[in-house]
Amino acid sequence: MSAELFEATKRWGRWGPDDERGALNLLTPERVAGAAALVREGIAVPCGRPLATAPAADNPTPVLHHMIHAGDLASEATAFDWSADFVGVACHGNTISHLDALCHVFVEGKMYNGAPASEVTSVGAQRSSIEVAGSGIVGRGVLLDIPRLRGVDWLEPGEAITSDELDATGVAVEQGDIVLVHTGRDRRRAALGAWNTFVDGLAGLDAECARWLYDRDPAVLGADGVSDVMPGSDPAWPIPIHMCALVGMGIHLLDNLRLDLLADACAERGRWEFLFVVAPLQIGGGTGSPVNPIAIL
Amino acid sequence: MSAELFEATKRWGRWGPDDERGALNLLTPERVAGAAALVREGIAVPCGRPLATAPAADNPTPVLHHMIHAGDLASEATAFDWSADFVGVACHGNTISHLDALCHVFVEGKMYNGAPASEVTSVGAQRSSIEVAGSGIVGRGVLLDIPRLRGVDWLEPGEAITSDELDATGVAVEQGDIVLVHTGRDRRRAALGAWNTFVDGLAGLDAECARWLYDRDPAVLGADGVSDVMPGSDPAWPIPIHMCALVGMGIHLLDNLRLDLLADACAERGRWEFLFVVAPLQIGGGTGSPVNPIAIL
Amino acid sequence: MSAELFEATKRWGRWGPDDERGALNLLTPERVAGAAALVREGIAVPCGRPLATAPAADNPTPVLHHMIHAGDLASEATAFDWSADFVGVACHGNTISHLDALCHVFVEGKMYNGAPASEVTSVGAQRSSIEVAGSGIVGRGVLLDIPRLRGVDWLEPGEAITSDELDATGVAVEQGDIVLVHTGRDRRRAALGAWNTFVDGLAGLDAECARWLYDRDPAVLGADGVSDVMPGSDPAWPIPIHMCALVGMGIHLLDNLRLDLLADACAERGRWEFLFVVAPLQIGGGTGSPVNPIAIL
Amino acid sequence: MSAELFEATKRWGRWGPDDERGALNLLTPERVAGAAALVREGIAVPCGRPLATAPAADNPTPVLHHMIHAGDLASEATAFDWSADFVGVACHGNTISHLDALCHVFVEGKMYNGAPASEVTSVGAQRSSIEVAGSGIVGRGVLLDIPRLRGVDWLEPGEAITSDELDATGVAVEQGDIVLVHTGRDRRRAALGAWNTFVDGLAGLDAECARWLYDRDPAVLGADGVSDVMPGSDPAWPIPIHMCALVGMGIHLLDNLRLDLLADACAERGRWEFLFVVAPLQIGGGTGSPVNPIAIL
Repeated sequence: MSAELFEATKRWGRWGPDDERGALNLLTPERVAGAAALVREGIAVPCGRPLATAPAADNPTPVLHHMIHAGDLASEATAFDWSADFVGVACHGNTISHLDALCHVFVEGKMYNGAPASEVTSVGAQRSSIEVAGSGIVGRGVLLDIPRLRGVDWLEPGEAITSDELDATGVAVEQGDIVLVHTGRDRRRAALGAWNTFVDGLAGLDAECARWLYDRDPAVLGADGVSDVMPGSDPAWPIPIHMCALVGMGIHLLDNLRLDLLADACAERGRWEFLFVVAPLQIGGGTGSPVNPIAIL
Repeated sequence: MSAELFEATKRWGRWGPDDERGALNLLTPERVAGAAALVREGIAVPCGRPLATAPAADNPTPVLHHMIHAGDLASEATAFDWSADFVGVACHGNTISHLDALCHVFVEGKMYNGAPASEVTSVGAQRSSIEVAGSGIVGRGVLLDIPRLRGVDWLEPGEAITSDELDATGVAVEQGDIVLVHTGRDRRRAALGAWNTFVDGLAGLDAECARWLYDRDPAVLGADGVSDVMPGSDPAWPIPIHMCALVGMGIHLLDNLRLDLLADACAERGRWEFLFVVAPLQIGGGTGSPVNPIAIL
Repeated sequence: MSAELFEATKRWGRWGPDDERGALNLLTPERVAGAAALVREGIAVPCGRPLATAPAADNPTPVLHHMIHAGDLASEATAFDWSADFVGVACHGNTISHLDALCHVFVEGKMYNGAPASEVTSVGAQRSSIEVAGSGIVGRGVLLDIPRLRGVDWLEPGEAITSDELDATGVAVEQGDIVLVHTGRDRRRAALGAWNTFVDGLAGLDAECARWLYDRDPAVLGADGVSDVMPGSDPAWPIPIHMCALVGMGIHLLDNLRLDLLADACAERGRWEFLFVVAPLQIGGGTGSPVNPIAIL
Repeated sequence: MSAELFEATKRWGRWGPDDERGALNLLTPERVAGAAALVREGIAVPCGRPLATAPAADNPTPVLHHMIHAGDLASEATAFDWSADFVGVACHGNTISHLDALCHVFVEGKMYNGAPASEVTSVGAQRSSIEVAGSGIVGRGVLLDIPRLRGVDWLEPGEAITSDELDATGVAVEQGDIVLVHTGRDRRRAALGAWNTFVDGLAGLDAECARWLYDRDPAVLGADGVSDVMPGSDPAWPIPIHMCALVGMGIHLLDNLRLDLLADACAERGRWEFLFVVAPLQIGGGTGSPVNPIAIL
């Protein structure tokens, strides 16, 4: 069924056969300017997690953070000294807030717009790398707060969200929006501790939400999980939302965001739209970038 | 003389003895909202450079970019496959666009607000790390385009910019602004190739501009070089702007930005102010972060 | 009691106040030549483990192994092509075969020979770094096979080995030997899977074996665990063998060796001595090195 | 002509169609035992260079060495503390002493024994990785000292060595030997400073020496350069010795050794043979390993 879903929602060629940007093309100047006009109070809310350097049940490959020059080399007798460090990140890890490039996933050997997987070589992606988002992603963000809808603090790992629920939040999603789905992951982690998300899963969108994405036509989709409910129901199509969004529709994904702060800020104001800015690093040939998106209310 | 300059412009205690954020405190909601109102056309201009992975005269310690799973492992016979990569960055390198944390520089064994260098240990900074900017830096950006003022394409390495020139650009700098100084570095590199910036230097602000910073009171200072003219004139105080701004005044610095695109966009519109967003990674104990700041006009 | 043990076995000044090599000084040319004469059959047995790149219960910080140029870039149409990779290792991890430098451990702020911990700065060790073993460690190796002595396949995590047992193996340990203690760790892992060695521990030498080390006077000590029984009995002195050997006696340690192959080879021959060669990387200021020691029988 | 040389010296199938070890098969127990018998004085001479962490003309991609826990965290008031570090190496860099795996080079899309380059994927080599040398390389080493033969301190970059010269050294090379060629590179660097070896080249073997290798049939070849004279004379076959040795004959190569110490030790004794031990790290799927080979005289 996932294969049919993929075909039904595929939008290759929409912006021409050579397009590498997909739904980022929806972020027109008009929409960007309109999003900026949403700012009322001037409150910035971070949606990235701290880079996880400590091993944990949900962090089997920790981020490297190494000091390379520290304060022990400074002295009161010397006018000038400094500190410096090194950071090493494999951004697709399951606790790192990151933006997936369109080249991150292949379906039947093809990435977005039908380009062959062979264009992603051992030295980097020649097509649809993260560089296509190098000018930043700026637009109208909307938060769909599912725990609030359901009257719970968080969804349990493995719980699926339906497209009806996405609509039932009452937030009107418009073409070109940056849609963020809150599942309460960070609240659960704070209360119960880390769990192995590969084994025990994550709450997320049911596969059928791919049609909803097709209909609503957002520019970007993000979640505090990985958008997909995990584990998926079809081993051959383990993450259908990733597959349909990144490969079929050209929708960039934001994984592992921190959305509890934003959910609180929105609930407090009764307002679920805001200016949203993602500033990926310009990694040549990159398959993604660690990011710290900022919502501005 | 630099020591006197440092004392004369020092603002320790301004936001209390425990403050770690310095001039970021100037980014009040009012200023953030006011900055958002500057957006007219909805044009996003990136101010970060591509992460420099290739060795070059100005890049002795290249960024690591390693593919860890590429398209060669995908097949048309398999529904799902993926690509992934690793990035390793020592952000204070001299071609990397980055935000300096206030703990990055010490003067006589002390960082901003008088905290001892010993609070930056071999496992990270306990005070004034990059985490204090974790909510993002959002404000009114202004571009001071020095080559345009002088009627040249670029300044030569080692050329100093005076505070009179900063004023002569005609851009009114206000308290809490994010001030960006364009020297034409990227244009020169594009035309003449890379040079060893440690040996041959960079155009930047003369030490006396520290007083200008004190008077204008910006939230953040940035440049396409390192703000300081290089090499400096006093070996004991090699980068006085860094020392006075980061340590004395608590002004975060943006180094090695790419500002030619922004300079062109501003000149085209005759408008030198814009919404400016910096979204540093939340690196626990970090001395800085690679960034790709976005100007929105 | 550990403090007394430390004082009782301390050998600071034995090779002069400036010595940085400790018991490596026992590896005289005579002993090296004598060790070479032990080779009979010409069988080389590796005592290093494969570098562990996969996350596991005993591997919370996996070794990085990244291909940086792979076969996907080669072609039959091109005469020449190549592959290359990158390896990143924090060698003191608990599954990595490594040699501890004498600067790796401090007791009351001092390393071997009384040098202050401050000589190990955030840019490396100025004293007793791994460089002192840069010429390689070559000598007579002897294997003390404790599971064989006890008639079991392996010792359980947390089981302590006494000095009486070390003697009871019947292997005569001589001054300047490289002493290897087999606990059967690899056999247990192969049979039962990985366990969290920090939580559940490792078999190893009881603290009192420090006196045995003092009396036998080996050049180097190694084990398939970390020499110390884990967890230790005194939280303030968590790894007394490390503390007494590295800091007090200047004995370099080999941790996390693979000794099951060597144990089998020795048992087969009824011979527990061999030429043993350790070739650490020359890491300037390093606190240790990943190694793959070779026993030659 | 290189293509003919390659065909003329190719030895695919010599140890069967599935062999991955090539000439390492020549290191029989008899040869290993015989090599051990060469040790007379018990002098160990390191043949690896210090891992080059500083940027230099010949080091565009420096080794990473990061302290991850230093002495600044220790205290006299605490019984136990420690230091630790991280090392990151792309071993095929041009100043790093390393062992090339047979999968490191491809000729017309094939590696040693005709295996396709596609067996080296973006996650590692499935054939002829460095693991095949995991038991260590132990054998009779012989040093061919070309500067001594020519009566100079060093050869200039780009100078070719002929097979006649290899013979003229008077050192009898036997089947299964580990042949080391000294060009004086380290002496030149010490005297004149670093040079860009990619641009200015390295002294090394003329392509015709491939036939000499075929005739002499060593187990391993090493040099203080990269064995090949650089730059080569045929752009399509830039490193014919690498191509013929690694791919055609299955001879592992040791690049960028430090051989001045060994040359001095041999000259002093008038003896050019010794026990030689290489202990590569067991890097799963690796294309090579940094090494510090030890000659024992």
